[in-house]
Amino acid sequence: MSKDGMNYAPKGKSSRVCKSGDFVFSVIGLDHGHIFGMTNGLLEAGAKIKYVFDPDEKKVASFVKKYPGAVAVKDERFVLDDKESLMVAGACIPGDRCALGMRVMSCGKHYFTDKAPLTTLEQLECAKKKVVETGKKYMVYYSERLHVESAVFAGQLIDEGAIGKVLQVIGLGPHRIDAPKRPDWFFKKERYGGILCDIGSHQIEQYLHYAKEDDAEVVSSQIANYNHPEHPELDDFGDVQLRGKNGTTNYFRVDWFTPNALRTWGDGRTIILGTNGYIEIRKYTDIGIRRGGDNVYLVNDKTEKRFKVAGKVGYPFFGQLIKDILEDTDNAMTQTHAFKAAELSIKAQNQAVKIK
Amino acid sequence: MSKDGMNYAPKGKSSRVCKSGDFVFSVIGLDHGHIFGMTNGLLEAGAKIKYVFDPDEKKVASFVKKYPGAVAVKDERFVLDDKESLMVAGACIPGDRCALGMRVMSCGKHYFTDKAPLTTLEQLECAKKKVVETGKKYMVYYSERLHVESAVFAGQLIDEGAIGKVLQVIGLGPHRIDAPKRPDWFFKKERYGGILCDIGSHQIEQYLHYAKEDDAEVVSSQIANYNHPEHPELDDFGDVQLRGKNGTTNYFRVDWFTPNALRTWGDGRTIILGTNGYIEIRKYTDIGIRRGGDNVYLVNDKTEKRFKVAGKVGYPFFGQLIKDILEDTDNAMTQTHAFKAAELSIKAQNQAVKIK
Repeated sequence: MSKDGMNYAPKGKSSRVCKSGDFVFSVIGLDHGHIFGMTNGLLEAGAKIKYVFDPDEKKVASFVKKYPGAVAVKDERFVLDDKESLMVAGACIPGDRCALGMRVMSCGKHYFTDKAPLTTLEQLECAKKKVVETGKKYMVYYSERLHVESAVFAGQLIDEGAIGKVLQVIGLGPHRIDAPKRPDWFFKKERYGGILCDIGSHQIEQYLHYAKEDDAEVVSSQIANYNHPEHPELDDFGDVQLRGKNGTTNYFRVDWFTPNALRTWGDGRTIILGTNGYIEIRKYTDIGIRRGGDNVYLVNDKTEKRFKVAGKVGYPFFGQLIKDILEDTDNAMTQTHAFKAAELSIKAQNQAVKIK
Repeated sequence: MSKDGMNYAPKGKSSRVCKSGDFVFSVIGLDHGHIFGMTNGLLEAGAKIKYVFDPDEKKVASFVKKYPGAVAVKDERFVLDDKESLMVAGACIPGDRCALGMRVMSCGKHYFTDKAPLTTLEQLECAKKKVVETGKKYMVYYSERLHVESAVFAGQLIDEGAIGKVLQVIGLGPHRIDAPKRPDWFFKKERYGGILCDIGSHQIEQYLHYAKEDDAEVVSSQIANYNHPEHPELDDFGDVQLRGKNGTTNYFRVDWFTPNALRTWGDGRTIILGTNGYIEIRKYTDIGIRRGGDNVYLVNDKTEKRFKVAGKVGYPFFGQLIKDILEDTDNAMTQTHAFKAAELSIKAQNQAVKIK
């Protein structure tokens, strides 16, 4: 496990859903290290990578070193014009993600972007229109659920009825700041979108998924810069309360205060309360206990137990996404859900009370 | 550890602050089992018990059996008129607690009540006036901090600077409902005060204490009866967001959804985020791990570790309270703090959005 969240790139067991060559994708935009996780997930599910483009040649070189199957191209036009690539995966700067998506989809390709998928409500409107216009997907790498085995497993427990009806989801998303290693855009609000939009979007996506809500109201949201005056546009803290259309609730906190002694980049937790029990996901570590991440704790009317699921669950999202595209199904994540999480995170950011 | 939160009555090591007879107290009101914890704490700190009164003779009999030093009296007047008792401890029904306090203090005695100490803002005004008028204390048994060694220890870590400046406190206060064993008043809102007032008052007291805030604003509060239609006045869920005067924040959830398989009455947790680290208190259990309660987890810039503190910390509040009264100091808990926690919990209850 990397100590730097920005290079979080899980590798799972290969679980191919198609023959090599059936699903070809290319890559544009290497600003966020999530592109490695996105690429791993697609390759493990049987996809074939073709081109990669980024204006930064160093980033491209390190990408190609990792994925020798990818061919570096000098202009994104090579990617956009390529007839073979069905999808473009990208992790450019959050403020640019929608614009890239519009170019990709206009060329008849599906788009798979790192989260947050967009940073303004105007961009969201463009993206929605483009989906209708082109029939292509604007899919999002909400990695903190899709690429975390304990988070996938918790969803399976819920679907099996292990805790009854879900009433509430609480999320804690602390991240290590590691400021000296961060690029400039990381500290510019117009570029990264604000903490609730950026890392908050993971949290909202998880809530909507686990609570099976398709809409929610932002009850309250707050942001602060408590301890980084040298980066005045950084939110180092944010929290949000949501109330779902069906009456469930969500609270989450995100922050950049992971302390140095933590063995990983963040002590991500999700606590899901149901009518007949609760689940706690300790995603990346189990503090004070030497056993690595991906521990799921379940307490219900019959049992109190821990599931250690690392290496056992896999990441079904990637294969489902490929099949959705090849077979015109809709199992990985609905477009509505992907956009709703983005919409609520932008609304939470826009209406946040600034505490400090 | 009792599986029933209502009979939660910790016993600690004796740590007498006075000679027997220096501090005499009596008891009125045995409706809530917290009276046992209150009595244990005072006796362990060196107090001497004198009289006990409750209209319910069965309750009195079981109290006297447990504390043979207590003499049962047939009317509360015997207690109120007693010259030797410096303080009356009581755990009557929440809606009646203030009225009892007014009678006690009018007779020149200090009052030590179970939480919530009162249930309306009008009662709070009376109580404040009575404190000024009599110079006596209206002290509160906020047991989830005062009578939990891990909670006491966390406060000591914070005071030593272990996590820098506190930014946020998150509290989870699930409780087992055990409905068939509950008295009628437990389900009548005017009597128990609502969930945010009743068990929420613990949470707010902890927040004010750990974050060193002396005032806060209720940012949002919600209540619900999700799953107990047979008790329409019960709130089985509530949550609150507070913002402190100094810019710290608090979120807590309280509920009556502890599932049957949990080994204790509730998986009480407190997570305290600071500028240089965080603390998690697992108060009464450590789910999925067989090691009992009172575990404190600390992660900061130097260490990531677990402190198992059961039996090691004690409960300094009780001795401090006795000394405050005997020596005219103010170390146990200020009157302002005790009342502020009550005020905010009533305000949170009064302005709560009812979800279901």
